[in-house]
Amino acid sequence: MPSTQQLYKTYQEKMRRIADIRSTSALMQWDQETYMPPKGAAMRGQQLSTLSELAYELFAEEELGKILNELAAAGDLQPDERTNVLLTLEDYEKNKRYSAAFVRALSEQVNKAFHAWISARKQDSYALFEPELARLVELKKRETDILGFKDHPYNALLNEYEKGATVALIDKTFSDLLPELKKLFNAIREKPQVEDAFFQLHYPRQQQWDWGMYLVKALHFDFESGRQDISEHPFSTSFHPNDVRITTRISESDMANMTWSCIHETGHGLYEQGLPVEHYGIPAGEPCSYSIHESQSRLWENNVGRSRPFWVHYYPELQKFFPEQLARVSLDAFYKGLNKVQPSLIRTEADEISYHFHVYIRYQIEKKLIEGNLQTRELPEVWNHQYKELLGVVPGSDKAGCLQDVHWSHGSFGYFPTYSLGSFYAAQFYETAKEKIPALQEQVASGDTLPLLSWLRKEIHSQGRRMKSEELCQHVTGKPLDASYFVRYLLDKYREIYNL
Amino acid sequence: MPSTQQLYKTYQEKMRRIADIRSTSALMQWDQETYMPPKGAAMRGQQLSTLSELAYELFAEEELGKILNELAAAGDLQPDERTNVLLTLEDYEKNKRYSAAFVRALSEQVNKAFHAWISARKQDSYALFEPELARLVELKKRETDILGFKDHPYNALLNEYEKGATVALIDKTFSDLLPELKKLFNAIREKPQVEDAFFQLHYPRQQQWDWGMYLVKALHFDFESGRQDISEHPFSTSFHPNDVRITTRISESDMANMTWSCIHETGHGLYEQGLPVEHYGIPAGEPCSYSIHESQSRLWENNVGRSRPFWVHYYPELQKFFPEQLARVSLDAFYKGLNKVQPSLIRTEADEISYHFHVYIRYQIEKKLIEGNLQTRELPEVWNHQYKELLGVVPGSDKAGCLQDVHWSHGSFGYFPTYSLGSFYAAQFYETAKEKIPALQEQVASGDTLPLLSWLRKEIHSQGRRMKSEELCQHVTGKPLDASYFVRYLLDKYREIYNL
Repeated sequence: MPSTQQLYKTYQEKMRRIADIRSTSALMQWDQETYMPPKGAAMRGQQLSTLSELAYELFAEEELGKILNELAAAGDLQPDERTNVLLTLEDYEKNKRYSAAFVRALSEQVNKAFHAWISARKQDSYALFEPELARLVELKKRETDILGFKDHPYNALLNEYEKGATVALIDKTFSDLLPELKKLFNAIREKPQVEDAFFQLHYPRQQQWDWGMYLVKALHFDFESGRQDISEHPFSTSFHPNDVRITTRISESDMANMTWSCIHETGHGLYEQGLPVEHYGIPAGEPCSYSIHESQSRLWENNVGRSRPFWVHYYPELQKFFPEQLARVSLDAFYKGLNKVQPSLIRTEADEISYHFHVYIRYQIEKKLIEGNLQTRELPEVWNHQYKELLGVVPGSDKAGCLQDVHWSHGSFGYFPTYSLGSFYAAQFYETAKEKIPALQEQVASGDTLPLLSWLRKEIHSQGRRMKSEELCQHVTGKPLDASYFVRYLLDKYREIYNL
Repeated sequence: MPSTQQLYKTYQEKMRRIADIRSTSALMQWDQETYMPPKGAAMRGQQLSTLSELAYELFAEEELGKILNELAAAGDLQPDERTNVLLTLEDYEKNKRYSAAFVRALSEQVNKAFHAWISARKQDSYALFEPELARLVELKKRETDILGFKDHPYNALLNEYEKGATVALIDKTFSDLLPELKKLFNAIREKPQVEDAFFQLHYPRQQQWDWGMYLVKALHFDFESGRQDISEHPFSTSFHPNDVRITTRISESDMANMTWSCIHETGHGLYEQGLPVEHYGIPAGEPCSYSIHESQSRLWENNVGRSRPFWVHYYPELQKFFPEQLARVSLDAFYKGLNKVQPSLIRTEADEISYHFHVYIRYQIEKKLIEGNLQTRELPEVWNHQYKELLGVVPGSDKAGCLQDVHWSHGSFGYFPTYSLGSFYAAQFYETAKEKIPALQEQVASGDTLPLLSWLRKEIHSQGRRMKSEELCQHVTGKPLDASYFVRYLLDKYREIYNL
């Protein structure tokens, strides 16, 4: 009979092997978005399906299940080891509910839908995407049955991204929050608007790239353990903490997009680089959840990267990169411009308030798709109607409307709510950081964000997945998640900018 | 009972899956040499080992063996299908001789040796590489027992790269050829030397890159199905015919190196892009052999790319890229300079004659390492002695000596002889091409290499691996391999250049 420690080592070995395959898939996806030649696409989809299936099969192995169950019943595991085992056992049992055929079918349909989405965007035609999306929605509905759920099928998918989240909870959060956001948004819209036209001057590609790289480095993203590249849609991915990849995009007539996408993805990247590499492949080495991941990107992008102190230090640096465009724009004008609030069509370009209207619309739509109360062919109409209702704007094309996000083409239903949760966590974490690090604002204003990063590393990154989001929040802030932190953060900020 | 056609389909499916994993390994290796951040190395080695082991396990599956044996015994397969099955069965039986543990141990040792080789080169210290190389040689010796051999253990390794090749055959080929090469080489060395100093002027990086890309495109490498990047050592790899990657390197004081490395790797890439994609994963979709692969790179690099007609068209183009450096160099001086014959230390920079002395030295050394008549610690001494003997030069450092090639760190013992075989095949193929395409020389002189490429596609690329090298040679040229084609090619070329 192997000892518990021998069994635990075998468990770690097996998980490392599965992580190697998942890392490899992540590399294939990274390559697909950055360097792959166009005709490589079809085969890449097939290869990704093969790897998904393989990872599924290895994780569904009977022997692994036996080991996990024995370890879960063993009395002589360290508490941290026990946590790893119980979390993995939970994942294992979930994985077992799938069949290899379903995993392959889903992966293949995602690939079809993704390529249909690319074509649909190119030709600005939702009709090209709709049939593939419809098939994907059918598979996701089947997945809710495979996973099982209480109360609402969408809960099954929500749980994939945020353990314990439910339709009831998200509905409640939004119904508390949206009226307050709406009120603030309307109050701002009645005030004189701030100027941000300077962002749309001509900013040459190479200088933007240099500026972005400067900024990512300055924020302590480790280029010995990662890199930045160009892709059509910015994203971050990680093969393990020593190889983390982020991407950005550059439009020569929009410097803002590139700047805050760099900071956002750096936030994700710093989290991944801060995970404990010695626990590669097991929960202690994995990120806590999607919403906590998003809290890290948003904390850097918004709480830090859209704050006045941050630009006290970095605006003079930015002006050195673009003297022609920015020499006559004051720090104050710059700060107000970058926080301009206005109705917009594109989620990723939205201000910090209306951003959550965008999320809410997507959440409503995908919930209805999954419960069967909305057909994919009705999607553009509902989308446009909701935008009119909530933001007062209507997209002139589906490309600027329901084709704008990649998520549905990836089958990632249940993902969007984590973006809002991420903002709420970020506000609460950042408020706590300000308490715990009394000199934080001055440090940020002198360009020194290392104390903040060290605090995040210690409190959040190094924790891996041992706590759920809610528990981690309690651990870091002493309180459960409370969206009023976020509302107060917005009120403080915009009262000053808009003289409310 | 499934029908033969059903079985054949299952066989194809299983092989496709294995090819997907091998493709993925190739992507990981490509990334490792091009974009991976430094700290990613250790984990990448582990991930590559996992994938090797997985590919091994899938290919060692009992069920696959059963299917292959049933198909081999079936009477109702098409001849081409039968060829695929028999070749795969042969590979299968070879693979079965290994154990998963040995595959993993070898892959891990290759990774260690490779990184030791990198460090050893950086610090110009063979001692850093030697212990890892010694362990790798021991594993390769064990591999010769696993594979089995007749007459000489090195035959087992030779066979991995060139089916049917033996020490007796290679010894005979070299002992026939070397005296003739030596004679020619000495005759040239007695003549006034040609000038090639213009290659060592300052050639700015970006212009070299642009020139290289121009050239690779002009030679019909398909950038929809491939790309070129920068790496420390130029190489080519393929994930499938629609995604073929080649690399080059740029030294600002050596334009020659970059130019002919681009043409060489393009030759490899064109072969891979010309393989029948519909046979992905099975022998009909694979390259014939290493020597035939090398024949393609060398045919383009040397027989085409170092010929006068080629530069009649491309030299004026090259001059446009580098007017300052080349405006006062005539086509004749350029042509002679690029064919300068001289003793050299670095294999990849050697002329077409002395290149084979470099190969011979490596062949002798690795044969002795494998038979146990040479210890790794004696390697530098033997290397330097052989260089003095054959080329009359002695490396001033191991970096320019026995550390120059990556092959041994990869465990690729038995590979070098295919380089010489590749030159011999190339000469014979090109002579045949000139017979079959009477206007070939004029076409090349007008920059039109498409007829030549189409002929290679039809005669060689599209054939996959259905014939052995020797059979393919017979099929293409009507004769078995005959190295005298190569000798005649050299004599014709150098007689004119050096007035022999």
